[in-house]
Amino acid sequence: MDFPTVGVIGAGQLARMMVPPAVDLGITLSLFAGSPTESGAQIAPHTVGSLADQEAVLQWARRCDVVTFEHELIPQELIEAISATGVKVFPTASSFLFSQNKLAMRQKMQELGLPNPVWQAYEGGEVSINYPLIAKSVSGGYDGRGVFIINELEELQTLHERVGQKLLLEEKLSFDFEIAIMVARSPQGQAATWAPTLTVQRNGICTETVTPIPNFSPALAAQTVQIALQIARGIDLVGVMAVEIFVVGESLIINELALRPHNSGHWSIEGAVTSQFEQHLRAVLDLPLGDTSLVAPFAVMGNVIGVETDKSPDLYKPYLHLMARIPGLKIHQYMKELRPGRKVGHVTLLGEDLLHLRSEVSHAVDYLSGAIDE
Amino acid sequence: MDFPTVGVIGAGQLARMMVPPAVDLGITLSLFAGSPTESGAQIAPHTVGSLADQEAVLQWARRCDVVTFEHELIPQELIEAISATGVKVFPTASSFLFSQNKLAMRQKMQELGLPNPVWQAYEGGEVSINYPLIAKSVSGGYDGRGVFIINELEELQTLHERVGQKLLLEEKLSFDFEIAIMVARSPQGQAATWAPTLTVQRNGICTETVTPIPNFSPALAAQTVQIALQIARGIDLVGVMAVEIFVVGESLIINELALRPHNSGHWSIEGAVTSQFEQHLRAVLDLPLGDTSLVAPFAVMGNVIGVETDKSPDLYKPYLHLMARIPGLKIHQYMKELRPGRKVGHVTLLGEDLLHLRSEVSHAVDYLSGAIDE
Repeated sequence: MDFPTVGVIGAGQLARMMVPPAVDLGITLSLFAGSPTESGAQIAPHTVGSLADQEAVLQWARRCDVVTFEHELIPQELIEAISATGVKVFPTASSFLFSQNKLAMRQKMQELGLPNPVWQAYEGGEVSINYPLIAKSVSGGYDGRGVFIINELEELQTLHERVGQKLLLEEKLSFDFEIAIMVARSPQGQAATWAPTLTVQRNGICTETVTPIPNFSPALAAQTVQIALQIARGIDLVGVMAVEIFVVGESLIINELALRPHNSGHWSIEGAVTSQFEQHLRAVLDLPLGDTSLVAPFAVMGNVIGVETDKSPDLYKPYLHLMARIPGLKIHQYMKELRPGRKVGHVTLLGEDLLHLRSEVSHAVDYLSGAIDE
Repeated sequence: MDFPTVGVIGAGQLARMMVPPAVDLGITLSLFAGSPTESGAQIAPHTVGSLADQEAVLQWARRCDVVTFEHELIPQELIEAISATGVKVFPTASSFLFSQNKLAMRQKMQELGLPNPVWQAYEGGEVSINYPLIAKSVSGGYDGRGVFIINELEELQTLHERVGQKLLLEEKLSFDFEIAIMVARSPQGQAATWAPTLTVQRNGICTETVTPIPNFSPALAAQTVQIALQIARGIDLVGVMAVEIFVVGESLIINELALRPHNSGHWSIEGAVTSQFEQHLRAVLDLPLGDTSLVAPFAVMGNVIGVETDKSPDLYKPYLHLMARIPGLKIHQYMKELRPGRKVGHVTLLGEDLLHLRSEVSHAVDYLSGAIDE
């Protein structure tokens, strides 16, 4: 095989962040983008088209050695159709389903004997979970969208009518904190996990991650790794996957799966020998996986999230202040328009002093997003 | 200033390796390339043209916020002409001269009171240096090209006639080893050095670097840093510069300067918090410089150099073997045709056990270049 072309459906920041490792390894990326102005399309070769235009997608896919995804909103039939042309697609449609359909995911975790919250499907009828409970869209939700707290049956019925499709109901857990673990797996079945990560959420959006998780018992860390490896094997993962987990005392309960590079793994760009983006390319190309060791005692990642402001936002100007203040800060710009609640970049800081790292990262993201002036 | 565009004259692997940090920081690169197939032009926005076509260069330069270089073969008049349009050019023509003209460099080091070998200009006439001596083309030489060992006057006269221009003569030093240090400096005068690097040469080409230098006394390391900072200030450097140095006992003698990212700084991509490529962009954009600390006890870099072979070379196929053998190996492909003596890529390995790192890097580059089969 000469140097291969990896096709990526989607051209957002996750596709953008595949560019640096692709450059290093000599791998050609080809994005299937909705628009040439998308984060990844700005800097990588791409074809602009609609996923509704199956023929256009297949024509593009035939020029790739392998096709993968950077978001979940890809019809199963399209994945099957690409696969039918003979072009390899990873994750496969049957694996990717668990990233797309929360009911299928819950069912699969149950089959694998892995810890779910109490859950049920709902399409009217009996509810066996105590209120308040969580109702989720079966597909399409992320960053807190499509997730609802339900206090009584009437509220649930109204939501169900509005959504117009089956819902997943889950018990509302009183968890201690939320974590995530990234795992990679190749077609040959080689698998590797990174250190489990603390994910700090605000309004359902991850604002910060800390890796490794402070004060996390070795037993729980080992159990987290075991769960990730068991899911990866159980769903025949190829590529990288994030497993989001609730920690309740000494118990771990699976929250969600994302079969793609994920926000909770961004720290690995500088914080691990092999980043999730390089690893994803290696996995889908059936290359041996890279070393996932941390390169520092702690890696703290903060998301730059747009705030409500009447100032004209300038994400470059803060460089002068921030780079002078924190010479080790690694800034990642997605080159997306700053809008309230939108992730437009992230920063990572490595070191030993966790309190210092977290306070500097917090300052940096607030300063970049325009939430503070100094 | 919104997100800026950095223009780079040249589109080889040094321009290519500026792409990842530019992507992260949201900086647009615009290369002035000799051909669209050059290493950097393959993956970055570029204009194809000839440096002899001054109007084409100026037209391209006017679309950039700052212009910089990735090689030395750029006429001084062209640099001056770009500068005259009002577009910032870093390094400036007067600084860059010391990277282009070895006689001017020697003269400047002498003015700065820095340690030169015994040297003289030669355009016929008296020779006051003992034979054997070194004769160098004043401009245009690199990787051992343009450097000649001269045993007697007649040989020198023949060379002078053949070269047809002034020569720089230098004493032939019996040095213990060769080192290099990278230094960055911004227009405001902020400067930062990385750890001094051992550069292992074979036939005048650097094959391997080890950072920091093993068994190098703290006093010599401090002196190396002092020399680099003094040169940077003395020539009003803006950007990054490599200072190549001979170590003779406890003395340091300056060999060459390169005012651009340099092979001896490639280790910094994974081995330092801020790579030479990111730092160069920060410096020419007058941004605060990044942390140059090492992230591991040792960083070993090996160049992949083409060998004479009758096999059809495939630089991708070795990935299967190498990635499985050394999961922490970082491979950089320049996507250049493999030709004997040509640098087509490099690998970097971080760790503690220097013997192990060096033997793995040596195996990796031999395996990639096709010099060995297993």
